[in-house]
Amino acid sequence: MFRSVPTPSRSVRPGTAGATHLADVVRDGRPETLRAWSARVPGGPDRAAQVAGLSPVEMRALVDLLDRPAAVDLLGSLAPYVAAELVEVVDPAVGAGLVAAVDPAQAAGVLRALAPEDRADVLAAAPVARAAAVRGLLAWPRGSVGARMHPDVVTVDPGQSVAEAVAGIREQRAAAHAAGEVYVTAPDPGGPAPVLLGALSYRDVALAPPDRAVGDVMRAEVAGVPPTADQEAAAEALRARRGTAVPVVDEGRLLGVVTAADVADIVAEEATEDAVRQGGALPLAVPYLRASPAVLWRRRIVWMLALFAAEMYTGTVLRAFEDELATVIALAFFVPLLIGTGGNAGTQVTTTLVRAMAVGQVRTRDVGRVLLKEVAAGTMTAATIAVAGLLLATVHGVGGEVAATVGVAAGVIVLWSTVLASVLPLLLRRLRVDPAVVSGPMITTLVDGTGLILYFTVARLLISALGA
Amino acid sequence: MFRSVPTPSRSVRPGTAGATHLADVVRDGRPETLRAWSARVPGGPDRAAQVAGLSPVEMRALVDLLDRPAAVDLLGSLAPYVAAELVEVVDPAVGAGLVAAVDPAQAAGVLRALAPEDRADVLAAAPVARAAAVRGLLAWPRGSVGARMHPDVVTVDPGQSVAEAVAGIREQRAAAHAAGEVYVTAPDPGGPAPVLLGALSYRDVALAPPDRAVGDVMRAEVAGVPPTADQEAAAEALRARRGTAVPVVDEGRLLGVVTAADVADIVAEEATEDAVRQGGALPLAVPYLRASPAVLWRRRIVWMLALFAAEMYTGTVLRAFEDELATVIALAFFVPLLIGTGGNAGTQVTTTLVRAMAVGQVRTRDVGRVLLKEVAAGTMTAATIAVAGLLLATVHGVGGEVAATVGVAAGVIVLWSTVLASVLPLLLRRLRVDPAVVSGPMITTLVDGTGLILYFTVARLLISALGA
Repeated sequence: MFRSVPTPSRSVRPGTAGATHLADVVRDGRPETLRAWSARVPGGPDRAAQVAGLSPVEMRALVDLLDRPAAVDLLGSLAPYVAAELVEVVDPAVGAGLVAAVDPAQAAGVLRALAPEDRADVLAAAPVARAAAVRGLLAWPRGSVGARMHPDVVTVDPGQSVAEAVAGIREQRAAAHAAGEVYVTAPDPGGPAPVLLGALSYRDVALAPPDRAVGDVMRAEVAGVPPTADQEAAAEALRARRGTAVPVVDEGRLLGVVTAADVADIVAEEATEDAVRQGGALPLAVPYLRASPAVLWRRRIVWMLALFAAEMYTGTVLRAFEDELATVIALAFFVPLLIGTGGNAGTQVTTTLVRAMAVGQVRTRDVGRVLLKEVAAGTMTAATIAVAGLLLATVHGVGGEVAATVGVAAGVIVLWSTVLASVLPLLLRRLRVDPAVVSGPMITTLVDGTGLILYFTVARLLISALGA
Repeated sequence: MFRSVPTPSRSVRPGTAGATHLADVVRDGRPETLRAWSARVPGGPDRAAQVAGLSPVEMRALVDLLDRPAAVDLLGSLAPYVAAELVEVVDPAVGAGLVAAVDPAQAAGVLRALAPEDRADVLAAAPVARAAAVRGLLAWPRGSVGARMHPDVVTVDPGQSVAEAVAGIREQRAAAHAAGEVYVTAPDPGGPAPVLLGALSYRDVALAPPDRAVGDVMRAEVAGVPPTADQEAAAEALRARRGTAVPVVDEGRLLGVVTAADVADIVAEEATEDAVRQGGALPLAVPYLRASPAVLWRRRIVWMLALFAAEMYTGTVLRAFEDELATVIALAFFVPLLIGTGGNAGTQVTTTLVRAMAVGQVRTRDVGRVLLKEVAAGTMTAATIAVAGLLLATVHGVGGEVAATVGVAAGVIVLWSTVLASVLPLLLRRLRVDPAVVSGPMITTLVDGTGLILYFTVARLLISALGA
């Protein structure tokens, strides 16, 4: 066995019972080395990354090293996309059999990552009931609670005594995700799923008097999330209640459960999507190393071209100020400095603010507080940068008028960029658009053109040779 | 009671039993309206944001509406910084008494957010043992596992029968975070904490035969995290094992526990810190709306000034190419377009890659795969942008030579920026520096100066009037 067999003693540490990295473990080839690795790296991103880092030949050797239950355990412990990589390189019949044996939620995740023709093979290799459960999960849209839930839940009847319930739970399949809660349901022979009546933590089950009825000790007030909701709703429900699991409920019927560990994954995934959006690209549907160059290009080129076209406006602005440039060529030297600094100031603001909105710290109604705070902070930054600009331009050896123009323009552009970067995300949220689309590149592009107008306007006011 | 009393029925929805927003609930002033709100918004970011959005007067009115146990429950359910805001506005004696009554982990969090003189008042108001526990937590550095853990754990003896253990658990204080696991410990009268021997989930407790010894049914292999570790270590341990709690263990002794809900919070906080770093600022130690303008300014101005000084280099480059600019003034029109696009391309790459590294999808050893992938994707993007640049410059009505220069330079700059943005994060990780410091603004600044050199080099090659 792979995940469930305890290692011989606590003394198993990197370097004692074998190599630290999986590639070396596979090369070593001894089952005990693999068991030691498996105890040391029981799952999570590190295990997934180590498996994903193997060559196809090494992946096949790894699966050959394992007996079937151990291979099923391995597959169940990997991020679905990494599990799919493993399935793709082994013998198709072996791979299909393994996927059919893992937890349905994991199987559905792996199937989503496989090519459609491979999906059919896997579903054909699974027992009929299991294949139906997995198909049911695949029907929910990506990113929904339904696509994320575990359909295997532990249920008890309200009329049972706690002792009878314990006996009943023992008979039910013990899945890892069953560690959270027990649900009290009434069967509904005509309906698609049983009706949810209440919930018990295992703590409640353990501590309740054995002869009490389940219906008397359960929590009747259970906050479930609908399967059609965004997966973030499940994360928020668990974090709000500090619980260990969230039931998935559709019109009072219990469809599945989302666990605490799933919630940690969801929070991380949503943060990844926002990080990519903030960089001015569309989020990837697959982990980075699984994305082909063509996929990366498609997710990036949309915004790149849009911003490129918008940025052409800067050329129009510069052309409009061609006379000023020709008269005082030194003005051109500071163009990248000024618009670059404006972009930086805006990017600082927008990344902080969009993230604060994503985690619920700032809402649309806070627009006044945000603006006051940002204008105050922006004024301080603008003043600092104005002084720095004046000093640096003077050191650069341009005349006093140009140096003054650079200093004043730097301050004005920083303040303008700060205001723009504060208002846009809040405005978009009010328009029900995800504020994460206000990316650093978007702010930078908006500030480039408008910043130039501010720069030359200041120049006209301060440089006598340009006197209007 | 506030959190634990069930609402009368499931039909409690926004609009039926009262107002949706807490400010309206406080204005309404009826306890049942508040109870309904409390059931609807049981905790998490939404509750914290609603409380944080109240004026000081409304906060005082809210606390006045609650009896003491309900006020303690409210304080325990808020993010520590919001709880601290509440404590600051109420009568100092009341506030100190409330903080002293909440869970020690929460109390420590609130104290960290209060001014030092207020801390002493709160600790003086707490019972001696509780004050000592809270002081112990405050001694761990911010961001460590120790600063995050709950010191109240449920423990049983290995020699007890399961039935005796159940009786013992009933007598122990039932904290919300006790829902995860039960720890098997041996007392160590001379030592700072009991020795950890094993763990049982409540599921194990519920299902084990009552007459079996605890030592026979426990898991002896328990993966704990040390209190000195970064809090991310606790999150990784829980996600890897798909568990509901992680014990905090120092030299074999059990100090506390980190729960699944804490782990979701940790994952969100770490993502927030990285998001702010990626925007070119230093992470805030407090939630956004708690940060004063002066704090925002300090966290932002460091990088702003560093990048401003670095960006001065662009002026030097432009001055070096002053003759080219004077000869072909049209070259100046495309400066913002080209360097802006280069910065955008680099920002897209670096945000995606840094996040993939943060979640463990990409490690230093993947540098080869990353570079191949990014050079391939970057070449496709460069070619697309080159064509777009050529077309747009032609439409702009500049000559064929300048249009060709703009197209070629756009492609070269995009490719250069892509390579820079791919290599830098991996290089920093290898040097054991957090790759999240490679921000969009840093890449933009690096590309601005170097991109100009590439642009004018291409211009010299392609424009006959500049023939070297």
